Amino acid sequence: MGRITQRKQVTRVYRDGGNSQSAGGHGEARFSLRSKLDVLAAEEPLEIRLGGESFTVTMRTPGNDFELVAGFLVAEGMLTSAQDLRSLRYCAGTDEFGNQTYNVIDCDVDPLRVPPVAGHRRNVLTTSACGICGTASIDAVDKTLPSAPGDGPRLRISSETMLRLPDTLRNHQKIFAKTGGVHAAGLFGADGELCCLREDVGRHNAVDKVVGWAFMGDRLPLKGTVLQVSGRASFELVQKAALAGIEMLSAVGAPSSLAVDLAERAGLTLVGFSRGQSANIYTHAHRIQA
Amino acid sequence: MGRITQRKQVTRVYRDGGNSQSAGGHGEARFSLRSKLDVLAAEEPLEIRLGGESFTVTMRTPGNDFELVAGFLVAEGMLTSAQDLRSLRYCAGTDEFGNQTYNVIDCDVDPLRVPPVAGHRRNVLTTSACGICGTASIDAVDKTLPSAPGDGPRLRISSETMLRLPDTLRNHQKIFAKTGGVHAAGLFGADGELCCLREDVGRHNAVDKVVGWAFMGDRLPLKGTVLQVSGRASFELVQKAALAGIEMLSAVGAPSSLAVDLAERAGLTLVGFSRGQSANIYTHAHRIQA
Repeated sequence: MGRITQRKQVTRVYRDGGNSQSAGGHGEARFSLRSKLDVLAAEEPLEIRLGGESFTVTMRTPGNDFELVAGFLVAEGMLTSAQDLRSLRYCAGTDEFGNQTYNVIDCDVDPLRVPPVAGHRRNVLTTSACGICGTASIDAVDKTLPSAPGDGPRLRISSETMLRLPDTLRNHQKIFAKTGGVHAAGLFGADGELCCLREDVGRHNAVDKVVGWAFMGDRLPLKGTVLQVSGRASFELVQKAALAGIEMLSAVGAPSSLAVDLAERAGLTLVGFSRGQSANIYTHAHRIQA
Repeated sequence: MGRITQRKQVTRVYRDGGNSQSAGGHGEARFSLRSKLDVLAAEEPLEIRLGGESFTVTMRTPGNDFELVAGFLVAEGMLTSAQDLRSLRYCAGTDEFGNQTYNVIDCDVDPLRVPPVAGHRRNVLTTSACGICGTASIDAVDKTLPSAPGDGPRLRISSETMLRLPDTLRNHQKIFAKTGGVHAAGLFGADGELCCLREDVGRHNAVDKVVGWAFMGDRLPLKGTVLQVSGRASFELVQKAALAGIEMLSAVGAPSSLAVDLAERAGLTLVGFSRGQSANIYTHAHRIQA
């Protein structure tokens, strides 16, 4: 897994056997320390350039970087079809020893189809926990608000299939299995079949990679699909899902108030607290059959 | 709790009794839907202005907004002592009906002490999951790398006290108790006493609020303290903690590789997977006594 994970010697502290966990700290609890090898999920900066000009830096887990860049630019509203993108390539970016870092990607877009960077430029560092950074005023938050889904395949999914998605996601998470420390996003069909799964320390990156995968395979908009994510559902994840044409976003954790508002307006079915035996449907429940 | 939480009628889907969860979907499982009232953690944009000029927008849970702004600017390296900040006030920002939204804060800094915005300007929208957005190249990621902690109180904490912090944090989380959907950051003394707890849909915001609380009370640097967070430990959280002079960051979840690297360099004790009975110490274990 190379740069996707890193090994690190750590000190493990653990409570020895016994049940003397008294509140006042006067118990008989004893603790031991021992050294063990741990596997960490990698987090590295990725600089995205447009036509050679720096656009943004995101903190991400290396792997599927081209998908990440494409998906990010789709969520920015800059790429809408495969013809908009002419090429993606690693460039510059060397470490102190002059080795290629694979941490800078230049994106060549069709100038006739994509508006110039000036209108979009985001002087930003996006962290591993951040996705839609890059605009300067509150009005701009809504800039990419998708309209309600148009025609095309209509998603209908059974409760049973929907409630099984988190387990399927977890069972396919290779990096999580090693590190216990990454988010995942999985794209599923109405029959519960997994189409694409991506992992990243940033949940928005995992979603960008899935959307980028679809973009590069000319599969957008993703009508008839469900996106299952491992964490909570924020405003930005709803925005990314809706922009990609995904009809349903299901999260293991809670949604925020703004995520629910946007899903309502965007015509997206939003599910939260999906935990095997039950889930909450926050918006557009008509796509789910008991 | 007003704007901190919102009520929403949702549809709950749940599996009826029975243990027929066969893999092929041919089981006898039955599902029911019922309506219930759910409480959501609020997520709203907050625009931060410096001297009237827009600096950044962050997605946050309303509450302790002044602390959030102050802590954010500390993490940016723009504020270092209480004298740098002349005033914070809500301004502009009205909704469609002309009502004050309390979503725009103007920050008046001492121009003799704080460098002009131009050098810092971040044309960004920070999401609820994002904290250190705002620089344009990879080199800038490390800009605020703190040096190793200097003199002053030295933290020594027992394993027992350290392993109790996540439970104490959870027991004091008022918004989480209602919504199940927010992060928390809690500042503790070496004796395990809680000094300050803040909650937010964004984990970086919760940390900014704690640091802002300390800044406004002229408590920086926070030598001799531990910051316990509810989620994972990313690069940005280590950076924020180290910049505030905090000696130890403890996370319930996993750290990333870059978080460990930075903690190592910054002299910060980094603990992950802290789950009551055990934890991993990734860096500078000397502060923890078995």
